Amino acid sequence: MSFDIVIHNGLIITVNSDFDIIENGVVCITKGKLERIEARVDDKPLPEAEQIIDANGGIIMPGLINTHTHLPMTLFRGLADDLPLALWLNEFIFPCEAKYLTPETVRMGTLLACAEMILSGTTTCCDGYFFEDDVASAVYKSGIRGVLGQGVIDFPAPGVPDPSNNIKNAVGFVEKWQGVSPLITPSIFCHSPYTCSEETLKKAKAASDSKALFFQIHAAETKSEYIRIQTEQHTTPVNYLDRIGILDENTLIVHGIWLDDDDIEIIAKRRSKVSHNPQSNMKLASGIAPVPSLLNAGVTVGLGTDGCASNNDLDLFREMDTAAKLHKVNLLDPTVMDARTVLKMATIDGAKAIGLDKDIGSIQAGKQADVIIVDTEKPHLVPMYNPVSHLIYTAQGSDVRDVIVAGRILVRDRNLLTIDLEDTLKKMAATSNIIKRA
Amino acid sequence: MSFDIVIHNGLIITVNSDFDIIENGVVCITKGKLERIEARVDDKPLPEAEQIIDANGGIIMPGLINTHTHLPMTLFRGLADDLPLALWLNEFIFPCEAKYLTPETVRMGTLLACAEMILSGTTTCCDGYFFEDDVASAVYKSGIRGVLGQGVIDFPAPGVPDPSNNIKNAVGFVEKWQGVSPLITPSIFCHSPYTCSEETLKKAKAASDSKALFFQIHAAETKSEYIRIQTEQHTTPVNYLDRIGILDENTLIVHGIWLDDDDIEIIAKRRSKVSHNPQSNMKLASGIAPVPSLLNAGVTVGLGTDGCASNNDLDLFREMDTAAKLHKVNLLDPTVMDARTVLKMATIDGAKAIGLDKDIGSIQAGKQADVIIVDTEKPHLVPMYNPVSHLIYTAQGSDVRDVIVAGRILVRDRNLLTIDLEDTLKKMAATSNIIKRA
Repeated sequence: MSFDIVIHNGLIITVNSDFDIIENGVVCITKGKLERIEARVDDKPLPEAEQIIDANGGIIMPGLINTHTHLPMTLFRGLADDLPLALWLNEFIFPCEAKYLTPETVRMGTLLACAEMILSGTTTCCDGYFFEDDVASAVYKSGIRGVLGQGVIDFPAPGVPDPSNNIKNAVGFVEKWQGVSPLITPSIFCHSPYTCSEETLKKAKAASDSKALFFQIHAAETKSEYIRIQTEQHTTPVNYLDRIGILDENTLIVHGIWLDDDDIEIIAKRRSKVSHNPQSNMKLASGIAPVPSLLNAGVTVGLGTDGCASNNDLDLFREMDTAAKLHKVNLLDPTVMDARTVLKMATIDGAKAIGLDKDIGSIQAGKQADVIIVDTEKPHLVPMYNPVSHLIYTAQGSDVRDVIVAGRILVRDRNLLTIDLEDTLKKMAATSNIIKRA
Repeated sequence: MSFDIVIHNGLIITVNSDFDIIENGVVCITKGKLERIEARVDDKPLPEAEQIIDANGGIIMPGLINTHTHLPMTLFRGLADDLPLALWLNEFIFPCEAKYLTPETVRMGTLLACAEMILSGTTTCCDGYFFEDDVASAVYKSGIRGVLGQGVIDFPAPGVPDPSNNIKNAVGFVEKWQGVSPLITPSIFCHSPYTCSEETLKKAKAASDSKALFFQIHAAETKSEYIRIQTEQHTTPVNYLDRIGILDENTLIVHGIWLDDDDIEIIAKRRSKVSHNPQSNMKLASGIAPVPSLLNAGVTVGLGTDGCASNNDLDLFREMDTAAKLHKVNLLDPTVMDARTVLKMATIDGAKAIGLDKDIGSIQAGKQADVIIVDTEKPHLVPMYNPVSHLIYTAQGSDVRDVIVAGRILVRDRNLLTIDLEDTLKKMAATSNIIKRA
């Protein structure tokens, strides 16, 4: 039997349920799927394949999963920082979104975001924004896997001046993209409990359920949101969402910072998922999510970068390092959020968080071939006593050498094969010059 | 007039007192010093030079300054993580130091550390460890600038079995290396107020003062240290050090986490400096240093990575990102530790913190030519509305393209010219295999 791709001469970190680590590993791929994963016995010849990839002693692992992004916001990366949240949103982000988001700029910004994600080892992203049809076009073109949702919000939004059409538009996006590509999973993205009415939230969730979709919502992100929901609904954001029927196993709570013990119990009981975005939460001074408590309660937590305007990058390696360290110092306990836990958050638990764990998140026969190879011949990765520790505490996105999604090679020796990077950078620079001058 | 090196076609971030940023900048270097810094007028030909470096539209800036390292600890990078501090030190770090530190392994570990630092844009480090003579040999070979101190501690230490010789050894190191190279500044490194007696601390400081040296000391790092000093000395670590005459403008307090308002006032009054090591403090769960309060009190704070066993890298770009974000979320204030403040901490304020600001820390005529060029043609650095924001929030060590120290080119197009990297990585891997098997 001949395979499409055989990867060899690397340490496979499977992130399967036993967390098996295979030295001198061989990964065989056919028709986009992982077919065989094994250790190479010295005298055994390699399986035949159309393409043989030598990992050169590096790490072979599942591609990383970014459970929360707003891809086109690369357009506004670093436009304004270090400001109070209201000033940042009202004086910079909202006016720029209103003025500069067009189908063209959204596609350009998304393509740039995909280039950055792919080159730093991310093979799946979960996105919610506006002009999502254009987001989906660019995601599709890039070859990355995406769970994508058109935003629902009770305010005029970019491209959707009349909020009464928001749910219709979001459903229209789903209908257009369902079945188009196995790499694109349409979803519903409801903005938040403070920007959507109870009626909107219920209708959006009903639409999501009627099509068996995954439902994303920002919740319990800031103290001001918490106070507002307490004032208006006389309870916490999470309890409010539960009361109106939004929380179940297909719901992803993004941020989940301002949670009390009862909220954590509710999330665990409903089997809802949480997307943890530590770098955005730190930079915007939103707060520190009680991730160790969520994990103790059995809640599935994935990692996310959030949009580029509030991070300011899409690099999950940096996010892993931060996630591992932040909770240690917050709890004054160096044993919480160990390297293995954090690596699972960025792979298999991220897959569970967005409902794709049957297909992705680990190196296991039968799953999709979403695989990355990390080059470990770098001064900051030597010596290597514990490869999992290295992935969390010192590896960088730029150490990712090759990236494969569904058996398609997107990056080979750090060359991005699906996007004209020079052209994308040039166009983005030109667009940003217009924004700069305004 | 002809220069040794002319760098052009880049944005110069000077970090001078006016924080001047020069578009289309030209930097002229002769005899190791910055001679002329100016904007290029379009029709003016470039100054003549032996070597012309085209920055290709990137950022030209002062090299980064790492104010606290233990360089040879690259040997133990990732050897043990996610453990309680006492277990980590007593079961892993101390036994490995005792068993595996030799002049040869120290030189090897230091050379690897220098390779990592230089390749990620660091041009000066401030180190304290044991076998410092071997550290200095490797630092000298690498071409990086170093403030180096042989450790003083009242316990048997690697290479120094009899602690009564510690001060003598530290002074011997100073005498050997003073005047050897303008790049090596010998210093005294006293371990801490809980590992050195009052007598040792006073003698070490007296020795330091008699030779007009810079004095480094870990202090107020952990809660247990704080409690111990409170119990034994009936006051805080900082007040104790002040009472016995250790604090003045030549003293660098490393960590400075467990500080009260009076401690901050003492540090400010004595004009002592602080080295802030946020990633190590997070990973070891030591606590969060009150850096914004120190800055408000007028204290000079530099950044440091700490040793590789507790970080686990030597990349100041990651440290800057973390420093900017950690204090925002800690104080729930997105305006503290803005990008410019943090960039100063890693450059000019770092220079002040280790007593070298007359020579380094900014791009100014007359200073040493310690210059790096950051390649901004990367997806994560486009668009660029604010280059300072990019350096803090999204640039990576691997974006550093060229590195110059005292007019000597150490890295050209990411090739390290002073160290045989392949040989160093191979030797370190072999040594770590011995440690692994033990």
